[in-house]
Amino acid sequence: MRLQTPVDGIDTASCEVRLSSGERLSYDNLVVATGARANGLDVPGTDREGVFVLRNLEDAIAVKSYLAATPCRKAVILGAGFIAMEMAENFSARGMETIIVHRGELPVARWDPEFSKIIRDEVTARGVTFVTGAVTAAIEGAAASRLALVTDRGTFDADIILMALGIRPDATLAGEAGIELGKTGAIRVDYAQRTSLENVYAAGDCCEVYHRVAHEWVSMPLGDIANKQGRVAGSTIGGKPLTFPGIVGAQSFRVFGLEAAATGIDEEGAAGSGYDPGSTIVWGSPVARVMNPESRRLGLKLVADRKTGKLLGAQAVGSEGAVSRINTLSACLWSGLDIDDVGYLDLAYAPPFSGAWDLIHMAAQQLRRTL
Amino acid sequence: MRLQTPVDGIDTASCEVRLSSGERLSYDNLVVATGARANGLDVPGTDREGVFVLRNLEDAIAVKSYLAATPCRKAVILGAGFIAMEMAENFSARGMETIIVHRGELPVARWDPEFSKIIRDEVTARGVTFVTGAVTAAIEGAAASRLALVTDRGTFDADIILMALGIRPDATLAGEAGIELGKTGAIRVDYAQRTSLENVYAAGDCCEVYHRVAHEWVSMPLGDIANKQGRVAGSTIGGKPLTFPGIVGAQSFRVFGLEAAATGIDEEGAAGSGYDPGSTIVWGSPVARVMNPESRRLGLKLVADRKTGKLLGAQAVGSEGAVSRINTLSACLWSGLDIDDVGYLDLAYAPPFSGAWDLIHMAAQQLRRTL
Repeated sequence: MRLQTPVDGIDTASCEVRLSSGERLSYDNLVVATGARANGLDVPGTDREGVFVLRNLEDAIAVKSYLAATPCRKAVILGAGFIAMEMAENFSARGMETIIVHRGELPVARWDPEFSKIIRDEVTARGVTFVTGAVTAAIEGAAASRLALVTDRGTFDADIILMALGIRPDATLAGEAGIELGKTGAIRVDYAQRTSLENVYAAGDCCEVYHRVAHEWVSMPLGDIANKQGRVAGSTIGGKPLTFPGIVGAQSFRVFGLEAAATGIDEEGAAGSGYDPGSTIVWGSPVARVMNPESRRLGLKLVADRKTGKLLGAQAVGSEGAVSRINTLSACLWSGLDIDDVGYLDLAYAPPFSGAWDLIHMAAQQLRRTL
Repeated sequence: MRLQTPVDGIDTASCEVRLSSGERLSYDNLVVATGARANGLDVPGTDREGVFVLRNLEDAIAVKSYLAATPCRKAVILGAGFIAMEMAENFSARGMETIIVHRGELPVARWDPEFSKIIRDEVTARGVTFVTGAVTAAIEGAAASRLALVTDRGTFDADIILMALGIRPDATLAGEAGIELGKTGAIRVDYAQRTSLENVYAAGDCCEVYHRVAHEWVSMPLGDIANKQGRVAGSTIGGKPLTFPGIVGAQSFRVFGLEAAATGIDEEGAAGSGYDPGSTIVWGSPVARVMNPESRRLGLKLVADRKTGKLLGAQAVGSEGAVSRINTLSACLWSGLDIDDVGYLDLAYAPPFSGAWDLIHMAAQQLRRTL
């Protein structure tokens, strides 16, 4: 049953939900699945018509309805994460002049500069303007377009402004109900998605998840993780207990002609988790050269621990084959393989799909030599 | 140094190579890399002009030279393994009428009937004739074309006939030199590619390789395995000992619009290795439906052990995404993961690349329910 009435609070001792209508509903178990909230910006004008965030289905419908009802020629995107990249492509595909306004220098912080530069170049090569080092002061009305984004790097007219500034777990309801939160600000759960309170579970972006490589509970609000957590909570409540075995941090997106994917942890995260990381990047063809001498290059970065040789993370960017490699390496991370194993992993070689030595092998062997 | 003179034999006691010229060359170490031989057919006429095997680069050059010099309209391929499939596509791409003549009913025995039927249908949909249950009696000369393949299912005219009947390890030289062979007929080696004789190594299709899932030494003549073995032998001889950690049986090919890939062992192999196998097949989209509702279906079969839940093997066939899944599952097999882990594996989800639940997850969970 989906409640259309806003929930005012939950009484965890009695497993009751208090609706804003005053009604109280009693259950045997509760699952808190309050998701995440889009980060806003503390400047004047973010409440103007034509200014959107894109967090949930309702947001997406609102954006599409606005575009359908309003002739829009110019879009400004605030922020440069993967949602910003995807939306830049989609605004461009509608024929709109699209400007990304970013506080930093490079997009998609998850990826290292060698790769985020390639993503930036792809986006600008497709006609998107990428403004860097810009601090927003206000969103104002404008003459030519409907809106103007005022920054210290200039003022940008826009018919629509999308604030793609990331999200944070929405644990307000849980916090007010006395459910314990983790240091990430998301709800603390165990491997069966139980919270600190009996018969109260949590699943999705509002709660933490165990990272098998970092060896700590993290907030990683991604849809596939939320799906898995929901299944574990539901099955456990339903009498078939499941254990959520955690994540390795696999993630991907596509923007224009590029695949970008990453898994595990980067060097900074590795150092923070007590590892002594080393890394290498290799560039090559995602398929055997004989199949397609013109195929664009795929870049693959591996991070491993100097002391044990254990694989810690990977990033890949290219026109094809990035996600495939990262998924294979995610399975390696899952089992804690070291790079000696990764360098000799048995992969399904055929020239349309890789060289006899795949980039995965080359990267692992090159990294081994430098550790 | 590559010897152009035929090798007559090797004296392993003295590490000497005897050339057919009578010369003897002495080395500190020898690596036997005699490869494999194409299987022939014991019928009259296989030595006629226009009849080829395709085992090595020289064979490929001979086929291409013949096609360049001779107007060819009809090609007959004997056999229906993956080389036969690849060559059917290539003959067709040259505009030749192409007929596959197969002793059995379905192509590519490595794949189960659910998948090999799809491969057969793809090949015939592209205009290739697929003749089954045919026993070849002879290759004769013919009036219209140059050759005629005479079988109990009819006579087939051809300008070129390719015998694609599989290969067997070429361990003749090693056997004559007293090097121990395995029960597969290939050279027995250890994890550093050493043979039974001191200072004599072997690498490639002529020797066995350890199968990590079957837990036995097998003959699996594939190019990527040969490359790895060569590197292990060379590095070990050069003073940097390496260990070849074995294979899980990953393999793939492309034919027309299909990817076919497999890894691990099938149910018959599993039963032979002492497992109690169960299996399931799922069909779905390789990408999120919202991205491409028309995308052709990908089939994925998983085999696992009923007693332990351990993943034992996988097969996949589809227009895209088959190799990617099989590589990920190969990494799972490498580490001996069970299907509970596979069902919750952390993969790099984004709609252009998979659903939030990938086919891998769905197959593993479905298999778990049936074990």
